[in-house]
Amino acid sequence: MKIGVLGTGMVGETVATALVRAGHEVRMGSRTKDHPGAAAWAKGAGTRASAGTFADAASFGEVVFNCTKGEHSLEALRAAGEAAIADKVLVDVSNPLDFSKGMPPSLLVSNTDSLGEQIQRALPRSRVVKALNTVNAYLMVSPSNVPGDHNLFLCGNDPEAKRVVRGLLTESFGWKTGNVLDLGDITAARGTEQYLPLWVRLYGSLGNPNFNIRVVVGPAPTQG
Amino acid sequence: MKIGVLGTGMVGETVATALVRAGHEVRMGSRTKDHPGAAAWAKGAGTRASAGTFADAASFGEVVFNCTKGEHSLEALRAAGEAAIADKVLVDVSNPLDFSKGMPPSLLVSNTDSLGEQIQRALPRSRVVKALNTVNAYLMVSPSNVPGDHNLFLCGNDPEAKRVVRGLLTESFGWKTGNVLDLGDITAARGTEQYLPLWVRLYGSLGNPNFNIRVVVGPAPTQG
Repeated sequence: MKIGVLGTGMVGETVATALVRAGHEVRMGSRTKDHPGAAAWAKGAGTRASAGTFADAASFGEVVFNCTKGEHSLEALRAAGEAAIADKVLVDVSNPLDFSKGMPPSLLVSNTDSLGEQIQRALPRSRVVKALNTVNAYLMVSPSNVPGDHNLFLCGNDPEAKRVVRGLLTESFGWKTGNVLDLGDITAARGTEQYLPLWVRLYGSLGNPNFNIRVVVGPAPTQG
Repeated sequence: MKIGVLGTGMVGETVATALVRAGHEVRMGSRTKDHPGAAAWAKGAGTRASAGTFADAASFGEVVFNCTKGEHSLEALRAAGEAAIADKVLVDVSNPLDFSKGMPPSLLVSNTDSLGEQIQRALPRSRVVKALNTVNAYLMVSPSNVPGDHNLFLCGNDPEAKRVVRGLLTESFGWKTGNVLDLGDITAARGTEQYLPLWVRLYGSLGNPNFNIRVVVGPAPTQG
């Protein structure tokens, strides 16, 4: 599959590399045509890898991953161009983290809105699926980094788009399909984004970003 | 131990009943001296159970549980009286849920603040420990309702207060001490309270409130 990856940071590079290794053709997009990091990545990642602007990567991909930092995501997607992503599956991996108030970060969008929803509103013709934003970059593409079963969440308004993303998560990244939980429409991004404040506290407490959560379910209670 | 439980709802009643069964003397507090629900609970729960106002319950307890609804907690604690809870361990079980904007609820306090912190600021002489707010009431007091290992979080500024609460969670409610994770000072309440938006989405998706999360940790990554 042809995939555009927006963002040249650790998340973008990790996701793009894993997609190339899984056999996809991947174009990494950045703000400028000649971003040194993106060019170096494309050179090192093999013949299926290329680099260009956000618009180049978005036009190239049948599926587009938003791996930009949350504070820049709307701007990056505007630069990519609404038409270039229209009707495509847009996997939103970003978190609206605000580091300007110190550590641990707070959120730029939260409570009755989410960055996933803002992106869906900004790109009404795109089929936004929020996914992967609840684990660190290495774990996104290599779930066996944490032993046993643990969960990933996805949400979005388009069931077919969610099927496409579930397929990429399972076939290209190795997530067990039973461990990928569908939380409903894109408003559920409020849930997965607002999990981040707990994630950062767990990270601080564990001293290790290589962790995830497993949802453990008991029998449904009978009304007493 | 003498324990005051503020709140007569499902959470207050479930917590108070479990504490009586564990051998504690428990006074349930409510807004009025003759709250029918509190009186009925005290009558049914045995000789170690009693009922009174918020102030009665707070004065009675060596440890006080805030089991009021988050939207009423600060008011209930003001009614209990700062002096009555001064120097005591105050276990804050509440969540600042806002149902006024429809389902699922949003939060009345979030992001750069939390209800746990608001309560600690309002009662600077009390030793607030946020705990139990990430699971449903029945699971709070009966962790075996969900099979296997799963986690509870606590946070607060006073290490000795956290030891007292950990003791109650393990000895009176049956949580394994290794499953109770200390997330640090009271600002970590931002993490556990903002987990609620994910909790409500999981509840909606699972159709069952009898679940929890288990934190699964892999080896710490080596810098690449």
